[in-house]
Amino acid sequence: MPMTDQPRIAVVGTGLAGCLLATLLARRGLEVTVYERREDPRRTGPERGRSINLAVSARGLDALERVGLREESLGRALPMHGRMIHSVAGAESFRPYSADRQRAINSISRAELNASLLDVAEKTPGVTLQFGYRLRELNLDTGQLSFETSDGHRRRPHADIVLATDGSYSAARRAVTFRQDFTFSQDYLDAGYKELTIPATPDGEFALDPDALHIWPRGESMMIALPNLDRSFTCTLFWPKADFAKLETDAQIRDYFARNYPDAAPVLLNLVEDFRQNPVGSLVTVKCWPWVHRGERVTLALVGDAAHAIVPFFGQGANCALEDCVEIDRCLDESGGDWQRALDTYQGRRKANCDAIAEMALDNFVEMRDRVNSRVFQAKTAAQHALERRLPGHYVSRYELVSFTTMPYAQIPDRMRRQNRATAATAAGLGVGVVAGGSVARAMWRRIRRR
Amino acid sequence: MPMTDQPRIAVVGTGLAGCLLATLLARRGLEVTVYERREDPRRTGPERGRSINLAVSARGLDALERVGLREESLGRALPMHGRMIHSVAGAESFRPYSADRQRAINSISRAELNASLLDVAEKTPGVTLQFGYRLRELNLDTGQLSFETSDGHRRRPHADIVLATDGSYSAARRAVTFRQDFTFSQDYLDAGYKELTIPATPDGEFALDPDALHIWPRGESMMIALPNLDRSFTCTLFWPKADFAKLETDAQIRDYFARNYPDAAPVLLNLVEDFRQNPVGSLVTVKCWPWVHRGERVTLALVGDAAHAIVPFFGQGANCALEDCVEIDRCLDESGGDWQRALDTYQGRRKANCDAIAEMALDNFVEMRDRVNSRVFQAKTAAQHALERRLPGHYVSRYELVSFTTMPYAQIPDRMRRQNRATAATAAGLGVGVVAGGSVARAMWRRIRRR
Repeated sequence: MPMTDQPRIAVVGTGLAGCLLATLLARRGLEVTVYERREDPRRTGPERGRSINLAVSARGLDALERVGLREESLGRALPMHGRMIHSVAGAESFRPYSADRQRAINSISRAELNASLLDVAEKTPGVTLQFGYRLRELNLDTGQLSFETSDGHRRRPHADIVLATDGSYSAARRAVTFRQDFTFSQDYLDAGYKELTIPATPDGEFALDPDALHIWPRGESMMIALPNLDRSFTCTLFWPKADFAKLETDAQIRDYFARNYPDAAPVLLNLVEDFRQNPVGSLVTVKCWPWVHRGERVTLALVGDAAHAIVPFFGQGANCALEDCVEIDRCLDESGGDWQRALDTYQGRRKANCDAIAEMALDNFVEMRDRVNSRVFQAKTAAQHALERRLPGHYVSRYELVSFTTMPYAQIPDRMRRQNRATAATAAGLGVGVVAGGSVARAMWRRIRRR
Repeated sequence: MPMTDQPRIAVVGTGLAGCLLATLLARRGLEVTVYERREDPRRTGPERGRSINLAVSARGLDALERVGLREESLGRALPMHGRMIHSVAGAESFRPYSADRQRAINSISRAELNASLLDVAEKTPGVTLQFGYRLRELNLDTGQLSFETSDGHRRRPHADIVLATDGSYSAARRAVTFRQDFTFSQDYLDAGYKELTIPATPDGEFALDPDALHIWPRGESMMIALPNLDRSFTCTLFWPKADFAKLETDAQIRDYFARNYPDAAPVLLNLVEDFRQNPVGSLVTVKCWPWVHRGERVTLALVGDAAHAIVPFFGQGANCALEDCVEIDRCLDESGGDWQRALDTYQGRRKANCDAIAEMALDNFVEMRDRVNSRVFQAKTAAQHALERRLPGHYVSRYELVSFTTMPYAQIPDRMRRQNRATAATAAGLGVGVVAGGSVARAMWRRIRRR
């Protein structure tokens, strides 16, 4: 098939990325069928204990804006302007995300956001949604594409291009996992996670400040909490998997929380039930290459978590996956609809960016768990914010570059290195009084920003 | 099943490790069935263009000795006492592997060594060999173990313990690849390899010095050659895969070799045919964890390349796999036959060692391809050998520790770091005449050796 003709497109997975991608492609006049192994989540509700909410930031919002969902999403989200750190003694300490205290990431229900994206996709001419379709076979050479439907039938639709947006454990990716020259890694943290809930207070209020992402850094373990519209908080406890199993009796569970999370324990009203019933989830980083695979009949491209699952500690998994979809759309613009060129450009541009956020997300685990509570880290953050206020737009923290800009992720580590060198120079300059009026420092900062 | 009873053991794969392991286990009084997807290679001969020979060194010999094959293997092997470096101008330069020029690695036919190990296994009471058995299903929970035989039948034998010695692309490993918490990576080099042959000369002699491993380092590409008993050499050309395809015509193939391998080209008598007919092989590093997987019914342990495929640049793949088998046998000794304890100890002891040789093998690719031909590398090697002669037993090169000792691989990088610090100190001491009679240096070296 000449790839500049209209190819038949199958998207696997109706998660956030699958819905956005289908919508963007159908708007180009393409016919897109989206297959989802689960039933329509707008009818069945979300699965218990599985990432109930997420933090949407600049990249996600930029993507949602393209399908008219930015304002609607923000309207259903709760802004979090900083981190609230909870000490073992129960003290709270607020750390704004930006020097001006104006920037926020947005806590939103994954199910609601997904439902909005499903609604938009469904209304877009050219998009067909098929629920209860579990991918059973994908052979790029024979063109065999086979789904098992929830009523037990086999369906064998045709597709020229399969776009896999079916997540960290992508079934579509298995079709190429054992191909020669497919470099692939799945790397599990020792830590797993379990979701717990802080319900609204009896008088219907938030039990904690809703304007913050709450963190209880404890070294080996860590708990976080994000606010929900119903004034509850969804907590996530991160802990080595082996440790979860050590809490056997109700008393052990209660005692552990009373000792380690003393200010949270009284408001975790369903603690024992949540702890017993919610599963322990895994934290996996998936990297692979290539993302685009051509067979005799079918081309497969991996998108979002299917291409690059990352750990959740930077709140960027969904944001990054949505950014992938925008990039594919942009590449199709640039290639004039030539899919092969577009997909090559897509993977070429995104790989280094997704590798970079994967590393930053792992790094942030250590930061949140250990360092966020240290005096050195606090002093560093305060110094960064002081610099940002003195040199507005020049010094920008890594967190802000990741969360409040759409700067390609891969440029951020390098930018940080240059900033840090300049910071040291500035500090040295200020210290010995050499930099009259900071003019030398400002010239240095201008050079950094320009690159 | 209580694991101290006699479990039914299935070994998957009759390669070097599978045969050795089956023999060692049967000698413990266990019943072991070994399943191999190919037919008996002693009847069918080896596959074309797939690693015809290998270099057995201390670790492999130590393992072979345990089944009485050390002397027989050495009798069928050709010792190589050093590297012969071939420059682009055609000059040869010999670099001994050890300072005393006495140590050698041993070029041996993989097929012959495998046949010897098959013979030994077959003769060992308790071992059953099943050829033409392709693993189709392995479910650790249901205990389902299913093979497709070469005559098209299904066989479903019972096993309590499955030992996977089925290589880099292990079929048995696929049974656990997508399990939660299975950390797994397969990492392909851009470079592939192709085997070529330098036949014996018309008067029946070796065309090159048979006492060396020949290396043609060319940066982007590299060729090596190992001698065979029939006085031929098996050459392996390593080159980025994309480059192999660039040589399209016979003239292009001949021209490329005449320019880049001018002294080898005249003796590569079947160059064009070899180049056209032999496949381009892949070079993959596989790492994973855990190696031992327990289901409701079956325990699976990964052994050899199935657990830790490495690139061939240190000549340690087979040596390392055979060492795994010896370790399992040792762990069973120590646990008094308790399989669960033995397998846990096995994986705990071997993981860091196999990670270490994997890294050293990748590192050696760069060394062989680029550095071996540099003046700095040559000077360093000469200095190392001078040190070894002056401080016998104190300074030992990395190559020697890997190839001529059974020191656990994981200890070698650390030992090298300590040696290198001491070397610098010794050199500095000698340089400024501080170390009278080298006594201080010798004391330092004694400390290193003791650790």
